[in-house]
Amino acid sequence: MKEEHSQRIFMPEEQELLEEIMLHRRDVRGNHFLDKPIPSFAIDKIIQAGLKAPSVGFSQPWEFVLIENKETKKAIKETFSEETKKAALLFADEKQKQYIALKLEGITEAPLNMAVFYKPKDGPVLGQTSMPNMGKYSVVCAVQNMWLMARTLNIGMGWVSILDPEKVKKVLHAPQENQLIAYLCFGYTDMFYNKPELEIKKWEQKKIQQDVVIKEKYG
Amino acid sequence: MKEEHSQRIFMPEEQELLEEIMLHRRDVRGNHFLDKPIPSFAIDKIIQAGLKAPSVGFSQPWEFVLIENKETKKAIKETFSEETKKAALLFADEKQKQYIALKLEGITEAPLNMAVFYKPKDGPVLGQTSMPNMGKYSVVCAVQNMWLMARTLNIGMGWVSILDPEKVKKVLHAPQENQLIAYLCFGYTDMFYNKPELEIKKWEQKKIQQDVVIKEKYG
Repeated sequence: MKEEHSQRIFMPEEQELLEEIMLHRRDVRGNHFLDKPIPSFAIDKIIQAGLKAPSVGFSQPWEFVLIENKETKKAIKETFSEETKKAALLFADEKQKQYIALKLEGITEAPLNMAVFYKPKDGPVLGQTSMPNMGKYSVVCAVQNMWLMARTLNIGMGWVSILDPEKVKKVLHAPQENQLIAYLCFGYTDMFYNKPELEIKKWEQKKIQQDVVIKEKYG
Repeated sequence: MKEEHSQRIFMPEEQELLEEIMLHRRDVRGNHFLDKPIPSFAIDKIIQAGLKAPSVGFSQPWEFVLIENKETKKAIKETFSEETKKAALLFADEKQKQYIALKLEGITEAPLNMAVFYKPKDGPVLGQTSMPNMGKYSVVCAVQNMWLMARTLNIGMGWVSILDPEKVKKVLHAPQENQLIAYLCFGYTDMFYNKPELEIKKWEQKKIQQDVVIKEKYG
């Protein structure tokens, strides 16, 4: 059994470096992506980070579609345009003006797009029997691992969610049972913001620990 | 604008350290937690990692309930016991025997438990209008950040999902609109496995890049 034990003890400066990586991770949109290809070693490192994510019952229920084709990106961009037009109407007055002024995706500007799917398994999955969303959450863990890894490669990532998942599936000929969890845009950038863009632009305020931590029980 | 730019460029050895952290992150169960309190600086660092997670429309739709009370843990453990009994019946023959033999949680052994909730917002959320699950996925990103941060503090974390979310809410007096995303157990450990326990115990096989990466389109 001993050879199955990890000997790795992390040092405070290693903990602090992770903190810094998390602090500098940003959602990057098309106005900051550079038209510069991502080398395949970097794509592999990003995918390998996804494969190291935790998954419920070790089910690893993920599939990653890598998209570089311009026509495919244009077809995906169409569903973004449709959905964002509908979305804008949901916001009132000033918020609507601000919504429309924001650049919210980088589908055609990013050299690499990635659709990340949840692929359900036939039969029961350990740990997913009482909380059926657990498989999808495993896929989200893979996305977050990839996001952090991309940042350490100085590559920006943007998560585009203003899309009709069924239209994305159609464009990519995805199997019926697959569920779109995330549509990601990757590329080198001209800059990273030092804070979330929506915080800088005062769309929402940053929450602090006291706002969201409850001791023992509510009420 | 310039002061809003991050000057941080990460070096290859920093990228490699993140890889190593991800490689050594494990799901830890009760047979490996030590009865040793987690200092408050470490709890703060874990929560701060959660607060640095990306969130759709910067909505930060998370709430974290910190549980140290033994009676509360016992009440949560009861729903685990009920749910795992039901779950075992879903697996056939050998798999059922293996399921029953596995230690799948560390609720009462872990010095700190944490229930992580998604708190829906009134009104539309930027980026969540076409994909309503996005808020829940933001909370999962916070969980993954906390998991990685805990590992660099040499603290183990286990995600328990064999629970009835409504019963957990009841025990914690959670508001009706809150949705349980994750129930986490934190503690120092006697060891970390060097691979996922369910891989070592041959519950599932590790998937490799070729199994799950698709180029451009399916089929």
